[in-house]
Amino acid sequence: MTGPLLEILNLLGKQAHAIDGGAARQWAETFTHDGVFRSPTYPEPVRGRDALTEFAAAFAANNPRTHHIVTNVCIDREISADECLVKANLLIVRTTSSDAVSVDRVTTTDDRFVRRDGRWLIAERAVTRD
Amino acid sequence: MTGPLLEILNLLGKQAHAIDGGAARQWAETFTHDGVFRSPTYPEPVRGRDALTEFAAAFAANNPRTHHIVTNVCIDREISADECLVKANLLIVRTTSSDAVSVDRVTTTDDRFVRRDGRWLIAERAVTRD
Amino acid sequence: MTGPLLEILNLLGKQAHAIDGGAARQWAETFTHDGVFRSPTYPEPVRGRDALTEFAAAFAANNPRTHHIVTNVCIDREISADECLVKANLLIVRTTSSDAVSVDRVTTTDDRFVRRDGRWLIAERAVTRD
Repeated sequence: MTGPLLEILNLLGKQAHAIDGGAARQWAETFTHDGVFRSPTYPEPVRGRDALTEFAAAFAANNPRTHHIVTNVCIDREISADECLVKANLLIVRTTSSDAVSVDRVTTTDDRFVRRDGRWLIAERAVTRD
Repeated sequence: MTGPLLEILNLLGKQAHAIDGGAARQWAETFTHDGVFRSPTYPEPVRGRDALTEFAAAFAANNPRTHHIVTNVCIDREISADECLVKANLLIVRTTSSDAVSVDRVTTTDDRFVRRDGRWLIAERAVTRD
Repeated sequence: MTGPLLEILNLLGKQAHAIDGGAARQWAETFTHDGVFRSPTYPEPVRGRDALTEFAAAFAANNPRTHHIVTNVCIDREISADECLVKANLLIVRTTSSDAVSVDRVTTTDDRFVRRDGRWLIAERAVTRD
């Protein structure tokens, strides 16, 4: 039940550091080539690594001193040896110009992970907000 | 030393999503049949899955837009191959009616986990608050 | 790629509980004997377990009701079977005298972990703040 969980925890940690550190391409590469990101914060789904790279670069440029804090990661359902659904909570935490820290929002991510060439990647992420 | 940690991380993640999403019975089923939950926030210990289900249902009904954020999970002590003590910090995070997010409290959970029919479950949880 | 991650997650959880609970020596023992801790919050690096113990004891004494919340843990690079670089975000969360909870700061930790006598320990930690 927890087979790929450790690798997925590692990937989600790297993913957070990538977007927060402006490594936009690296963030996009946590998705499959045709990966999709859906969030109510943004008008349209983002599809494919080029668009995902642009998305992450814009986020980093517009959100200095901001961190994606990934928590409550669990495998919601194993579909096959190469596909599973993963749920997590993602907090957006920001240090303001006066050095105060605020939690900007709490989201839930529902990821469909697939194994491609031996690596687990996100095929689809759906973000929901409270 | 970390044998059951991955399964426990998965269970604690699922547990958080269960109570926050109103899946009260699913939350109760992360405990053993005679599992006990003790917290200074509540006057009496909660014992057994029926009472635990009621407890979780009441929490969800009374606390909309609230998340249990589980962090710092570690195995404090292995008692046997089928029993261990697990410590974690559990933050209660809430989105208010004005869409601000506040951390309501920081707690420490001390769980006694036991393996029953091959699955790790919580036999006793003691919550402490700062 | 994720070989030592589970043991490292366990150690980082224990480390947080140790410093927050005033178990200063236990905190120091998550570092190697000659381990080094560097943080912009403090003027000089802290070197070796005696100095690390003093450091942790002073932190606990001066920061009641404070928690180190470790998140986004991932293996940034595996150097060898016995050495790896681990990145995480560490939030300092504090309950004030009026029982409000504030996130005091968000930091990033870059740890060089080494395996000594079969156990993974921190040889060097560099903390950066936003």
